[in-house]
Amino acid sequence: MTASAFDHPYLSGLLGDEEISAFFSADADIRAMLSFEAALAHAQAAHGAVSKETAVRIAEVCATFQPDVLALRHAVATDGVVIPELVRQLRNAAGGEAAEKIHHGATSQDVIDTSLMLRLKAACAILSDRLSRLLGSFDDLGRDWGGNQLMGQTRMQAAIPIKVADRLSAWSSPLADFRDRLNKTAFPLQFGGAAGTLDKLGDKAGTVRATLAENLGLSGRPQWQSQRAVVADLAHLLSLITGSLGKFGQDIALLAQTGDEIKLSGGGGSSVMPHKQNPVAAETLVSLARFNAVQLSGIHQSMVHEQERSGAAWTLEWMILPQMVIACGASLRLASTLVGQIERLGR
Amino acid sequence: MTASAFDHPYLSGLLGDEEISAFFSADADIRAMLSFEAALAHAQAAHGAVSKETAVRIAEVCATFQPDVLALRHAVATDGVVIPELVRQLRNAAGGEAAEKIHHGATSQDVIDTSLMLRLKAACAILSDRLSRLLGSFDDLGRDWGGNQLMGQTRMQAAIPIKVADRLSAWSSPLADFRDRLNKTAFPLQFGGAAGTLDKLGDKAGTVRATLAENLGLSGRPQWQSQRAVVADLAHLLSLITGSLGKFGQDIALLAQTGDEIKLSGGGGSSVMPHKQNPVAAETLVSLARFNAVQLSGIHQSMVHEQERSGAAWTLEWMILPQMVIACGASLRLASTLVGQIERLGR
Amino acid sequence: MTASAFDHPYLSGLLGDEEISAFFSADADIRAMLSFEAALAHAQAAHGAVSKETAVRIAEVCATFQPDVLALRHAVATDGVVIPELVRQLRNAAGGEAAEKIHHGATSQDVIDTSLMLRLKAACAILSDRLSRLLGSFDDLGRDWGGNQLMGQTRMQAAIPIKVADRLSAWSSPLADFRDRLNKTAFPLQFGGAAGTLDKLGDKAGTVRATLAENLGLSGRPQWQSQRAVVADLAHLLSLITGSLGKFGQDIALLAQTGDEIKLSGGGGSSVMPHKQNPVAAETLVSLARFNAVQLSGIHQSMVHEQERSGAAWTLEWMILPQMVIACGASLRLASTLVGQIERLGR
Amino acid sequence: MTASAFDHPYLSGLLGDEEISAFFSADADIRAMLSFEAALAHAQAAHGAVSKETAVRIAEVCATFQPDVLALRHAVATDGVVIPELVRQLRNAAGGEAAEKIHHGATSQDVIDTSLMLRLKAACAILSDRLSRLLGSFDDLGRDWGGNQLMGQTRMQAAIPIKVADRLSAWSSPLADFRDRLNKTAFPLQFGGAAGTLDKLGDKAGTVRATLAENLGLSGRPQWQSQRAVVADLAHLLSLITGSLGKFGQDIALLAQTGDEIKLSGGGGSSVMPHKQNPVAAETLVSLARFNAVQLSGIHQSMVHEQERSGAAWTLEWMILPQMVIACGASLRLASTLVGQIERLGR
Repeated sequence: MTASAFDHPYLSGLLGDEEISAFFSADADIRAMLSFEAALAHAQAAHGAVSKETAVRIAEVCATFQPDVLALRHAVATDGVVIPELVRQLRNAAGGEAAEKIHHGATSQDVIDTSLMLRLKAACAILSDRLSRLLGSFDDLGRDWGGNQLMGQTRMQAAIPIKVADRLSAWSSPLADFRDRLNKTAFPLQFGGAAGTLDKLGDKAGTVRATLAENLGLSGRPQWQSQRAVVADLAHLLSLITGSLGKFGQDIALLAQTGDEIKLSGGGGSSVMPHKQNPVAAETLVSLARFNAVQLSGIHQSMVHEQERSGAAWTLEWMILPQMVIACGASLRLASTLVGQIERLGR
Repeated sequence: MTASAFDHPYLSGLLGDEEISAFFSADADIRAMLSFEAALAHAQAAHGAVSKETAVRIAEVCATFQPDVLALRHAVATDGVVIPELVRQLRNAAGGEAAEKIHHGATSQDVIDTSLMLRLKAACAILSDRLSRLLGSFDDLGRDWGGNQLMGQTRMQAAIPIKVADRLSAWSSPLADFRDRLNKTAFPLQFGGAAGTLDKLGDKAGTVRATLAENLGLSGRPQWQSQRAVVADLAHLLSLITGSLGKFGQDIALLAQTGDEIKLSGGGGSSVMPHKQNPVAAETLVSLARFNAVQLSGIHQSMVHEQERSGAAWTLEWMILPQMVIACGASLRLASTLVGQIERLGR
Repeated sequence: MTASAFDHPYLSGLLGDEEISAFFSADADIRAMLSFEAALAHAQAAHGAVSKETAVRIAEVCATFQPDVLALRHAVATDGVVIPELVRQLRNAAGGEAAEKIHHGATSQDVIDTSLMLRLKAACAILSDRLSRLLGSFDDLGRDWGGNQLMGQTRMQAAIPIKVADRLSAWSSPLADFRDRLNKTAFPLQFGGAAGTLDKLGDKAGTVRATLAENLGLSGRPQWQSQRAVVADLAHLLSLITGSLGKFGQDIALLAQTGDEIKLSGGGGSSVMPHKQNPVAAETLVSLARFNAVQLSGIHQSMVHEQERSGAAWTLEWMILPQMVIACGASLRLASTLVGQIERLGR
Repeated sequence: MTASAFDHPYLSGLLGDEEISAFFSADADIRAMLSFEAALAHAQAAHGAVSKETAVRIAEVCATFQPDVLALRHAVATDGVVIPELVRQLRNAAGGEAAEKIHHGATSQDVIDTSLMLRLKAACAILSDRLSRLLGSFDDLGRDWGGNQLMGQTRMQAAIPIKVADRLSAWSSPLADFRDRLNKTAFPLQFGGAAGTLDKLGDKAGTVRATLAENLGLSGRPQWQSQRAVVADLAHLLSLITGSLGKFGQDIALLAQTGDEIKLSGGGGSSVMPHKQNPVAAETLVSLARFNAVQLSGIHQSMVHEQERSGAAWTLEWMILPQMVIACGASLRLASTLVGQIERLGR
């Protein structure tokens, strides 16, 4: 079964991104969730809430534990979240006091949101690197063709001549800004316990949380279980990137249609018209831009997150966010491909 | 890699729908595309455009052909569509005159859109059946509890008492209408050739097309390569269904919150609060409704389908539509689960 | 104050539609709401629920009543709906038994939704007429230029030559379908009373409702206070129309960019480039298509209409639907303008 | 005619915001556009591009000029933008050398986008003030009721008790962040000339632009005519605010439904159920949140801004952005009203 074009056996050739998708595999999620449980045990040990030995034992179990995924799947159908069953399995594997202390003070959302943040942090580092490389490619284009003339087009009509460098700047300068924003993005720990108050940790709540964030390499802040701007901000940034690359793709497709101001290699073939060189990467950049612009609306609908935790709003994020990240990854990959296909720009 | 919650190893326990998802597997797509190529050969044979023997040979090859999917994936990266490479492989397998006549007169979009229609037709028959069963369950609820009193709620406040039957009618009567609409939905053949004019078929274009539609069990009509209301209409209907079921889910969640007018079994467990019975299915119906309401916007963006064929607009459909169908399937599955969990309604 | 470009003092020159906007004026709404109250009185009189004289008196008052709009505005701030205050004013004006019987058995939503349906029915008749005229203009283009050759364009690249008639068919045949659908659209009475059960009318509920629908020229059906497919269906159809016209606009803008297959008159001027002829109408058709594609998502979010009446979901419709209708009107107006600017097509 | 509920004669009582709407009146736009033209003349005079006297004369005309708005409306229908006709009228009024030098080096988009930024800057200062006042009101609630107990609700079910202060923090802490972001938002000058290169200003381009930005109190940066993140960032922030207030409204409506943990005054009346106290402001906050979440998608669609200037993408912003700002204003107004209606929270 392949619900999504992003990991479809052949459509992913166009739309997929293996490197970014890997962060959204079940396995990556499980590893990140287990690293939360391990780091939680250590953080509590650091503040005397569990013994050192217990924390070590919990971390050992988490390091290698392979859950029964079918049982997880079955449990999610009823519980709506994977954690109750995952923790049950983990406790069985750990035994003894470790079993008792696993997940102590945390709630499902703490584990799931933190796992997401850990993976988004890593994925965004890759996106940032790709942006830097792409910016380098635009610089190369500028060095080679920046002085060429290009007919400036406004409202789909020839206006006055500009330089290729001017157009390149319109493509690349927003991306440089978005790269800087990605680099400054905080990926916060989620840690609030059952209803956000860390009720089980008493006066150690703040220190355990700070240590936990530090151990996981995440930024510390009070829980944000029902405050989803963290997610919406990232989704917005992803859509800004795909939107800007969509503008680049649209421009290339328009240049390629007329054809006299660009020389492109490696376009797509047709099943019946061997003469064609379709600007497939350029078109797909537009598709991905519109896709993320649509999805962002769903992430913002999730801002209406009722009470301490909304199953409805939270689950909606799960259906939308991973594909937005992959769409951004695919868009950056395609943009690099497309830049590489430009053999001449302007004249 | 699992981009989509709908086929995620464990999230699919909540959000997936194996029966519906199967229609969106690569294999199902390939089988449907090959059945198009076979039926095309037969339709052309019926009108003397290819020999009977060639058509039989093409159909034989299509019946059992297993493409090299990795090569398809690689080709899609360049071509944007799977057909050029699939046809190339198929021709290699067929050899002789069959090789030459495979795909004759058709274009990539004919095959891909028709494959989609074949699979949507089958998927929608299942959705219709589920609607009928769900309507039966609502009837059962009506028989058991329809005469009970329920406090009518307007603007989130108690208004005047109504009967459980009144609320049931608000839940089920739109669904009956949508079921009838699904049953009347036409799933048309796509067949236009390179630029929609069936240029290679000359004066046989109309009759070949009619025969092809009949052979595939699809409705006949001129090509709709750049006219996407077919897709938008279906997406709208899917979102109406999930929207109505979202209303049902929201109502149940609200009833469950107060708790005195409903008795529900089988709610979800919490990782830290064993006393809880979360109305997970009800909440998820709301998530799925909002998901499809968001996605519909993307399908309508695809109506702006430039010229004879827009790669940008068409590719956007691929990213969105399958998950809308699966979301509808999951929603119907969850609604049936939820109705089954209602042990008492009203009082 | 001018929140909307559709009735902005100068932007409306481009985006407005005076004829369609008129149906969404406060005055048109008030007149329609009063005609509901009058028809309700007559329908009740027809079935003996109020006296003939009272009904005549109510209808007389409704025919000429001019409410204190500032007081309405003030009341809406608190009540969320205009009806309690409007009915209060109306009762003051009517006096006597008429005062008592005005609005009998109805609720705010009955009046407001029915007023909307009355006005949408009239607006859609105009949209249908415009579609017919536009189809006539496309026919004229076909007669003049249908036999000319046009380079078919797929994936933004020249494919094979087609006839202008082929492209015209892709533009007009969806519109003919949408016109037919508009003509078949049912505009139903809303009549359910406080919680949808017509509790105050006893065994006369059904007959009063049928008579009321007939008197108002609307279709009869049980109340649909929380069942919003009526609204969503229309919004979908409006967006299909603007989407198809957006495709037409996009195609014209692309033709105008290259310039050798179209001769257009009357393009827009620039503040600094007197040589330019901007295809403003064509571009704006694209804007309107994307606008309605976005808005449709909001109407579908409103399908999650909790309990007997959701203030949240219903109010969202008010913010969105009128502009969708006007956008459709403006789109049809601009499409007619644009067709009229085509002096040659193909070659 | 009243396309928008935000300035509808009576619906604006609920949804409008006179103070914020004022910035989107035609008059406010015209005043801001004229202030751009005046400041442009002064900036050019400062760098010797026009004479001091001419600049003074231009500024004098701009200070009091009242355009023929009907003529503007008529011209927008053709030109798609108001500037060519406005500049024509202005030149007629100025006469002499001033006539020649008005608008020198600028293009329509420079004037229109800068006018928007000037008005958004002022509007956002008001939104920021309102956020501060609202935060103060939340503080007051905290002082009065923060220590009370509230049943924490997760997934629409009672979880464990929390303090009212905990819930208040979930409501107010995102708003404090958004207020800070509003305060740090840069509102940049738009100044690029016909195709973004300030072609008419030669080597004075950079200094004139810097002076112009300073004179207008806007931030300086190269033109962003086709780079719309400026607009998308603000739209995102507006939707974050309405989204968070929607969460607040949803929570209040849910509290009010059960009724034992809140005492609310001043709810809305019903036309038939005098006993009701509808939480109208709370519901409307949800509507406004969903509205802006929908609209944001359209602003992001506009990121695909083809070439040097896209009429299609730019015009789409005009239809959407003003109402997003007003929706945010109305949401803040209603939130303050709602906080004021809370007479007790928790127990």
